[in-house]
Amino acid sequence: MSVQKPSIPQGTRDFGPAVVARRNYIFGVIRRVFEKFGYAPLETPTMENLSVLTGKYGEEGDQLLFKVLNSGDFLNKKNAAVTTEDLEAGSKKILPKIAEKGLRYDLTVPFARYVVMNRGTLTFPFKRYQIQPVWRADRPQRGRYREFYQCDADVVGTDSLLCEAEIVLMMSEVLNTLGLTEHTIKINHRDVLSGVRFAAGEDPSKESEFFVVLDKLDKIGSEGVKQELKERGFHNFGFQWLEYLLRTHDGNKRMSSSERLKYVSFMFEDIMSDSNAEVVGSKGIRELEGVFRILKDFGFTQFDQLEFDPTLARGLSYYTGCIFEIKINNVNMGSVSGGGRYDNLTGAFGLPGVSGVGFSFGVDRLYDCLEELNLFPEAVATTTRCLIASFDAETARLMLPVLRQLREAGIPSELYPDEAKLGKQFKYADAKGIPYVLLQGPEERAAGQFKLKELSTGQEQLLNWDAVLAELTK
Amino acid sequence: MSVQKPSIPQGTRDFGPAVVARRNYIFGVIRRVFEKFGYAPLETPTMENLSVLTGKYGEEGDQLLFKVLNSGDFLNKKNAAVTTEDLEAGSKKILPKIAEKGLRYDLTVPFARYVVMNRGTLTFPFKRYQIQPVWRADRPQRGRYREFYQCDADVVGTDSLLCEAEIVLMMSEVLNTLGLTEHTIKINHRDVLSGVRFAAGEDPSKESEFFVVLDKLDKIGSEGVKQELKERGFHNFGFQWLEYLLRTHDGNKRMSSSERLKYVSFMFEDIMSDSNAEVVGSKGIRELEGVFRILKDFGFTQFDQLEFDPTLARGLSYYTGCIFEIKINNVNMGSVSGGGRYDNLTGAFGLPGVSGVGFSFGVDRLYDCLEELNLFPEAVATTTRCLIASFDAETARLMLPVLRQLREAGIPSELYPDEAKLGKQFKYADAKGIPYVLLQGPEERAAGQFKLKELSTGQEQLLNWDAVLAELTK
Repeated sequence: MSVQKPSIPQGTRDFGPAVVARRNYIFGVIRRVFEKFGYAPLETPTMENLSVLTGKYGEEGDQLLFKVLNSGDFLNKKNAAVTTEDLEAGSKKILPKIAEKGLRYDLTVPFARYVVMNRGTLTFPFKRYQIQPVWRADRPQRGRYREFYQCDADVVGTDSLLCEAEIVLMMSEVLNTLGLTEHTIKINHRDVLSGVRFAAGEDPSKESEFFVVLDKLDKIGSEGVKQELKERGFHNFGFQWLEYLLRTHDGNKRMSSSERLKYVSFMFEDIMSDSNAEVVGSKGIRELEGVFRILKDFGFTQFDQLEFDPTLARGLSYYTGCIFEIKINNVNMGSVSGGGRYDNLTGAFGLPGVSGVGFSFGVDRLYDCLEELNLFPEAVATTTRCLIASFDAETARLMLPVLRQLREAGIPSELYPDEAKLGKQFKYADAKGIPYVLLQGPEERAAGQFKLKELSTGQEQLLNWDAVLAELTK
Repeated sequence: MSVQKPSIPQGTRDFGPAVVARRNYIFGVIRRVFEKFGYAPLETPTMENLSVLTGKYGEEGDQLLFKVLNSGDFLNKKNAAVTTEDLEAGSKKILPKIAEKGLRYDLTVPFARYVVMNRGTLTFPFKRYQIQPVWRADRPQRGRYREFYQCDADVVGTDSLLCEAEIVLMMSEVLNTLGLTEHTIKINHRDVLSGVRFAAGEDPSKESEFFVVLDKLDKIGSEGVKQELKERGFHNFGFQWLEYLLRTHDGNKRMSSSERLKYVSFMFEDIMSDSNAEVVGSKGIRELEGVFRILKDFGFTQFDQLEFDPTLARGLSYYTGCIFEIKINNVNMGSVSGGGRYDNLTGAFGLPGVSGVGFSFGVDRLYDCLEELNLFPEAVATTTRCLIASFDAETARLMLPVLRQLREAGIPSELYPDEAKLGKQFKYADAKGIPYVLLQGPEERAAGQFKLKELSTGQEQLLNWDAVLAELTK
């Protein structure tokens, strides 16, 4: 076997012990909140049939799917032998003959597929959460990976606005528990956007494109948005509607969400002379008001962190109701979470009319926020609490029952396995982040005592067994 | 978009809420034991470069690797355009041009790759555990999947027998914690096998083949083993050695492990007239005795469940020291765990001489054992503890603060989100396995009381708030 210098694929990562521990801390917080709200865990296979995945994420998404080569002699599968003509026709022509499976691109499509396949046995409303990796053949760059985890919670089979309200509550509880108290949960409604689009009098078939430009308001400002809309041919009725919208937005942060709701409602009903805008836009406003009311009845108090933003658009075209997005205010980073209501996610698999709403946390961004703000609890960093050091093989042997008793007390512990100088053993503890080293020389043994050293302070105590346990479990 | 009947790839599985909860229970037990012994978590990417994976699992293994198609226009990658000649030469020729990555086949090779890539920053001995899925393009059949989880713990950078002893301790603690008390941990040593092979006088180059046959003793009995050895051309010196071995084994289960160690030691030293057998075999016996001694010093008591089996061979040729395997005695199933010491796992990646030892639990088999023996704790099955049912929209609204207080008390709770008949709401709770339903009609509200119904017993209590909390947290 020739020796090779090993590497990992572009855009993928190894997670060493300290990072896994911190990631698990985040997953644990999210999982506990999801479960407290009655969401139950689901896991789907890494590979899905390409027939399930293809056509769900747009043409660009299809290209970002990782495809898995059929196993065995993939060129000469029954009924699908690859020919010279196929080869000449190119990759797209050959693909269906050599690959039937792909890696999961998100957790939403597999969820929809699961719901349809199990519709006969599931109890609706069905509330599930799912914490698993997804894969995208994106060009790797800082902060963008080809394998990354998503943490999704969705409920399908009900159109109750309680679900939207609970999404706000879950978002808020996860962020506050993680210590990310400086956050803004933005909320909007697809119908508000449609109302704006009607008011702007633009071509309905270009609605998505219109929203994509509008969504850039934060990045490129109102002049930028106007400019780009003009370039793309959106200029009916001038930009009066945008001026109205901007009064809720630009440099006017002090308008509260309830004031904004009233203002935009007024804008639809009285200012804009388009009955579609009034009907559709007002419906969106009423639903948003409903969500705010439920939150108030529930006892939610952090309304200063919940912002109705009538320009929030989000890319995905399958949203049909409320949409959400979270920004962390004191970190310069994109949204750490987003979601919304969809009315026809399972339609592509033959089950129309199932309304659902859900959202997703991106664990990588949360991780970066916690790291930047130094919010990881210290205890998360390591697993072993105590290293037993020994002077030689004989003292090591005598410490074995001590090791057993530490573990029986639930204290993660190790005995340094080799004969080595004490310095080396302390170095090991230090490098591994083990907070305590326990020793017992012949004298201490005779006196029934132990030396316990806390590495962070250098403090060394001579203690009896009960005191050792007390110190290590404190 | 045409409607399709969705499916999942052969050999893969969806895990619904109840199954995930039970699997997580098993993972949790394993994780806590690993961490208590000072093992720290590692996670590696799903995709590895094929240069890392290929050639590590034998030719058969290479064929079972799932390969991932290069993204984009895979037929015309720079420097690697696929030609008509490639096509004619077949799948094997074309593969390196269109696929550079594959799915992880086990956790051991990625671990070795990680150790080599990070050798400069890791602290040795390096103890890691890893709980992740692996993929094999095996023919799917009952109990054999194409995607399944492994739970590995390995330590590298020490040849201390303490590690072997701790593997026995970890195996024992995991099984006892799961309630699988009727188990046998089998242990052997590669050198014992080599000693037997020397004693049998067989061709050293056919050692692995010899072990594979020997490993079948449990399945096909001693006559079967003799027969197969003969057919494969192993018949030097007759089968005296096998007769000796069988005295420790067939129908003689009452010989304890320490008696067996003495007996096999005696066999190497005094009975067999081969000095290699004596030297190598005795070394194996001494190491096994060392492991037993450490366990005794530690205070391990379950020696009746630890069985030295000199015929235990295990397939993998990379083991060089102790080898392990676990059988659950009261379930008819293959081994649920196995492992051993290896001296050159990282050699293929340019880092020779790193000794390590590790083992792996197969979660699917553990799951089946727990299910067959009815050992899953009941509390594992569900997440939501209490459903709040309501009579109409108005009582639902009034129950929102109750919902908040339940969650603040850490009780996973839901409010049925739609207006529905009580019967439907109770059915929902029942189907989801929610144990309690909480109600408050106008009369109860006036009296500051609640109706709490336990679904399993049908018992309905009229309680004040403190009593509700007490019942739900008991």
